[in-house]
Amino acid sequence: MGPQWEHRYAKRIQRVKSSAIRELLKLSEKPDIISFGGGFPAPDVFPVAEFQEACKKVLQDQSVLALQYSTTEGYPALREMIAQYYCEDNLINVDIDNILITSGSQQALDLLGKLFINAGDRILVENPTYLGALQAWNSYETEYITIQTDDDGLIPENLIDALRSSPKFIYSMPTFQNPTGITMSLERRKQFIEISTRFGIPIVEDDPYGQLRYEGESLPTVQAIDHQMNSLNGLENGNVIYLSTFSKLLAPGLRLAWVIAPKNVIRKLVQLKQGTDLHTSSFNQVVAYEVAKDGYLRKHIQLIRERYHERRNAMIEMLEEYMPQGVTWTQPKGGLFLWLTLPEHIKATDVFKEAICEKVAFVPGDSFFALGGGENTMRLNFSNASVEKINEGIACLGRAILRYIG
Amino acid sequence: MGPQWEHRYAKRIQRVKSSAIRELLKLSEKPDIISFGGGFPAPDVFPVAEFQEACKKVLQDQSVLALQYSTTEGYPALREMIAQYYCEDNLINVDIDNILITSGSQQALDLLGKLFINAGDRILVENPTYLGALQAWNSYETEYITIQTDDDGLIPENLIDALRSSPKFIYSMPTFQNPTGITMSLERRKQFIEISTRFGIPIVEDDPYGQLRYEGESLPTVQAIDHQMNSLNGLENGNVIYLSTFSKLLAPGLRLAWVIAPKNVIRKLVQLKQGTDLHTSSFNQVVAYEVAKDGYLRKHIQLIRERYHERRNAMIEMLEEYMPQGVTWTQPKGGLFLWLTLPEHIKATDVFKEAICEKVAFVPGDSFFALGGGENTMRLNFSNASVEKINEGIACLGRAILRYIG
Repeated sequence: MGPQWEHRYAKRIQRVKSSAIRELLKLSEKPDIISFGGGFPAPDVFPVAEFQEACKKVLQDQSVLALQYSTTEGYPALREMIAQYYCEDNLINVDIDNILITSGSQQALDLLGKLFINAGDRILVENPTYLGALQAWNSYETEYITIQTDDDGLIPENLIDALRSSPKFIYSMPTFQNPTGITMSLERRKQFIEISTRFGIPIVEDDPYGQLRYEGESLPTVQAIDHQMNSLNGLENGNVIYLSTFSKLLAPGLRLAWVIAPKNVIRKLVQLKQGTDLHTSSFNQVVAYEVAKDGYLRKHIQLIRERYHERRNAMIEMLEEYMPQGVTWTQPKGGLFLWLTLPEHIKATDVFKEAICEKVAFVPGDSFFALGGGENTMRLNFSNASVEKINEGIACLGRAILRYIG
Repeated sequence: MGPQWEHRYAKRIQRVKSSAIRELLKLSEKPDIISFGGGFPAPDVFPVAEFQEACKKVLQDQSVLALQYSTTEGYPALREMIAQYYCEDNLINVDIDNILITSGSQQALDLLGKLFINAGDRILVENPTYLGALQAWNSYETEYITIQTDDDGLIPENLIDALRSSPKFIYSMPTFQNPTGITMSLERRKQFIEISTRFGIPIVEDDPYGQLRYEGESLPTVQAIDHQMNSLNGLENGNVIYLSTFSKLLAPGLRLAWVIAPKNVIRKLVQLKQGTDLHTSSFNQVVAYEVAKDGYLRKHIQLIRERYHERRNAMIEMLEEYMPQGVTWTQPKGGLFLWLTLPEHIKATDVFKEAICEKVAFVPGDSFFALGGGENTMRLNFSNASVEKINEGIACLGRAILRYIG
């Protein structure tokens, strides 16, 4: 007979469900469907030749380093390169010991949950927020408080109200947010730091897309502003834990990301990561370093920007042409997504079925609301499909919505 | 000023410390030290040319598959290949849906902790046991119950006593155990299944070294025996969750391992893994498949066996020659380690300092005891050093011990 496994599961498992998105995306995996659903980068910008060259070189010259066990902190040369980037771009003093390499940003979110969250602890999240963060923290039995956002990011008055309930930390994606594409203005960033410092509540800044700006001036990261305003001594007294990733800059299949934080926080995360997966693939770290080094990454990012800029423009033009009255959308200056709002009585999950018949897919927005709501919203990805497919797909989506409204 | 981070940490963090081993191993990282400390495979058996060929081919023919996001379950061709291996070797019916690819076995241990362990739950472990499992589960605030082992593995009478305290599961490494090198006999395996089934307590069988046998007949896995004794219907009613890895068969730098379990358990682990790191590197999975396929893995394992067999023999011969009276050790028939016991009043951590002066390192055994003890024991690895270094290193170790005893 054997035991029933279910009754042995831990209490936290009640909070763990398969992502609704993943179930929906299965429907959109058929080759004839144009999908604006996933957050996939464009495969046509993967630096394949450079990877080939790097693998060859690494296996020739550094095979033991790449194939053997390595340290939990990550490959020193890679951490050094990342530190260098942030020193140059943000004029902040990032040391190699402020950096931990993780197996994707998803792992960083999980480790932060492990480090900070007791069952019942409150976390402040934007409304809507990144679904993957909710998934990571649900298994720590987290309670969420949501903050409303507008076109400039989270609203300071709402932040003050929310902070009175003493959350463990604030989770924010200030630049080209997933799912809305919205960017927090410079003024709001300063207020964000000022208010969170006043309340003594730390910030987790998730920044997977910051490099992918298609128009306007680049803004300093929230961590860099915190550094200017609060820290005289490197990041050590800082109020911000910062996350970014190679998933959108090189390739997500590598599962390579990083955390930048005060050294004592990094040391604790290293201990947790040791018990969680020992270390991130040494092979991938050494290969990614070989590909990215000597300025290649900056050059490559330029190519990605051009490609996605075109695609974003195409999507916005098509939306203007094909969306019925009463449908609105954001105008992201970068990133991978825009956010579409249907008239209030229309449910995106209903439209989804109509859209699948029209051979086009998206993600209904309600999954991104920690406490429910947003049934009339959807997330559209513009990085993965070609301009041609975007033109075709948005026309189909317009027809599906129109038919539903009509 | 910024917040004090420490007072925000979750309660579980009190249980999380850096591994004592890692601290000691730092001492042994100097190039002039012969280290029997780590559990490192021999770099001279890494199939470097095959990796080079595979990377080239994969990036040529399957670059999008290898570099893009992929499914949490793992690369289907790889899971299919692993399933096939177990069907052939163990005559059990493993389906692709019984397999989850993880980022090293360490991640599998962490996911099992997440799936099963509430704070205060008891887990039954061998005494001594694998340190990495303790590290993974400490952060779930686990309590341990230990079972004594002898030269045939865990002792049935002790198991019965221990099961009366209703642990969540039993963790065992029945084949060439880390740290002792001991293998559970066939008779004991059957008793193990019989008793644990009677009490309705599941087993986690950790089997990283099962393929690395240097003498004697290969034994069926505990999962295979459970399958014969209990399951009429594939693994679905089985009592065992089985773990293994490519770390010792191909290269640990890939971070590739697998779980074999009933499908409903795999489905739950998939949901947890989704929130933990989304998926294991697609690139590494596709490359490992390319290297391992068409019988290469079995051929390569043969080479590893020959190399490690030699090294094990060298170590045992040298121990016989150089160890003072009163020192004993295990005679492992496979794996990476043997276990040495000093006279009762001698502490291995004291000998360690003496040994470092003699330019030789090992791991003091006390770290492997969940509830303390074992101060007069040490783990010796024989896979990583050449026969020449083994000869030199054990002579030095003999001198260090002799000097300490004398």
